[in-house]
Amino acid sequence: MDNETLRLIDRHASVREYLDKPVEDAVLDKILKAACNGSTMGNMQLFSIIVTRDRGMKEKMAPFHFNQPMATAAPVILTFCADFHRFNRYCECRNANSQAYSNMQAYHWATADAMIAAQNACVAAESLGLGICWLGTIIFNAHEFVKALELPKHVVPVACIAMGYPAAKPEPAAKLNFSDLVHCETYKDYSDERIDDVYRDKEQSAETARVLAENPDLENVAQVITQRRYKQDDNEYFSDILMKTLKDQGFV
Amino acid sequence: MDNETLRLIDRHASVREYLDKPVEDAVLDKILKAACNGSTMGNMQLFSIIVTRDRGMKEKMAPFHFNQPMATAAPVILTFCADFHRFNRYCECRNANSQAYSNMQAYHWATADAMIAAQNACVAAESLGLGICWLGTIIFNAHEFVKALELPKHVVPVACIAMGYPAAKPEPAAKLNFSDLVHCETYKDYSDERIDDVYRDKEQSAETARVLAENPDLENVAQVITQRRYKQDDNEYFSDILMKTLKDQGFV
Repeated sequence: MDNETLRLIDRHASVREYLDKPVEDAVLDKILKAACNGSTMGNMQLFSIIVTRDRGMKEKMAPFHFNQPMATAAPVILTFCADFHRFNRYCECRNANSQAYSNMQAYHWATADAMIAAQNACVAAESLGLGICWLGTIIFNAHEFVKALELPKHVVPVACIAMGYPAAKPEPAAKLNFSDLVHCETYKDYSDERIDDVYRDKEQSAETARVLAENPDLENVAQVITQRRYKQDDNEYFSDILMKTLKDQGFV
Repeated sequence: MDNETLRLIDRHASVREYLDKPVEDAVLDKILKAACNGSTMGNMQLFSIIVTRDRGMKEKMAPFHFNQPMATAAPVILTFCADFHRFNRYCECRNANSQAYSNMQAYHWATADAMIAAQNACVAAESLGLGICWLGTIIFNAHEFVKALELPKHVVPVACIAMGYPAAKPEPAAKLNFSDLVHCETYKDYSDERIDDVYRDKEQSAETARVLAENPDLENVAQVITQRRYKQDDNEYFSDILMKTLKDQGFV
């Protein structure tokens, strides 16, 4: 029952180091075309893709990506934006109400469109031998990307993908068993015992051993994540910035 | 340069009518496994998938999907939830701070994870000969799905896919040219003339002619969308419900 596409998805692993080899225009076009062929809310196509290949632009945005190496090392960065601006402009040009989409529903629809496009781009890129890595940092400093990419109102960056030809074949990350993420008909809550079962393999993985070796004062990955990587104070600080950005961009 | 995966994405069209033929467990497992193998924020896997196959559950949720036929006709409905609950339970069991993710950053990370999983599921399903259709309605009445699917705090439904073996091969929707959704380095605003160019082919499509024939009192698709399909009052009403749901679920 397996096929090329399923095998491709099964092989997925984030690529963080790239060859010093440009992504050809024809390859990039295939990826962008695939990105734009996904499902979209009411066929409104509420997203835009900003292509970054210029070194100066990458360096300008690197600090807002917390200087992750991929943000400058990748030959191509694609930033996917929730975009109601183009559709609102269409409404303005067609004597239709362009004020209907200054709200959180519109933002969610456009975010879904952008995410669908982004994941389609990832699958397409991997099918062409490229490696990809999501840069989750795009949502922390959304306001800075708005400025750097010159985004008008009703456009918010929500996903960002670094891509290039891989310098090495990375190991897939240690994942939970898919059946532990799936619920039949209704959500089944996780007891303490079930949590132990769900996380056991991941906690015993080489990846976890490596992370704990880097954080010898902490007991487990949950502590590394909550005390080092994604701390409450930081999350609340960047949440305030995000809500202000959604307001500034006209969605709240 | 084309390959099976690119051709699959290129052929995509939403399927809204299904054969009366169940999706085999082994096929569904392939789809769910592919869904769970996408990129995820900090490898936290912040999503859950609720599988609906029970007729009673479909009928219970149909009104919240505004009785779209796919919501009951599809053999399988997958609801993808932004889920920080499982990770918070992990933190509780490992003496780590489980209060760090009651905010909009966390909601966005989890939403991205859920959307990546959903689009991977769509591509996987189509590779196996199934047809899919996104049900955007999931975000309008999120609070009702929370109740019906028994979702705990920090779990919000953000994407919903109907799937089954297609009863017919649908025509792809009339799309904008991909290059009109793409911006090089910075966002290039759309002048009135550019808007005419961007929307010309779509406005001249058979699909548009059909939509306008159904709405003879309106001049164009922009008016159909803003005055019939997604009206300002409705959008604002459902935005308030959505924000209340995010608050009730502990993210705001």
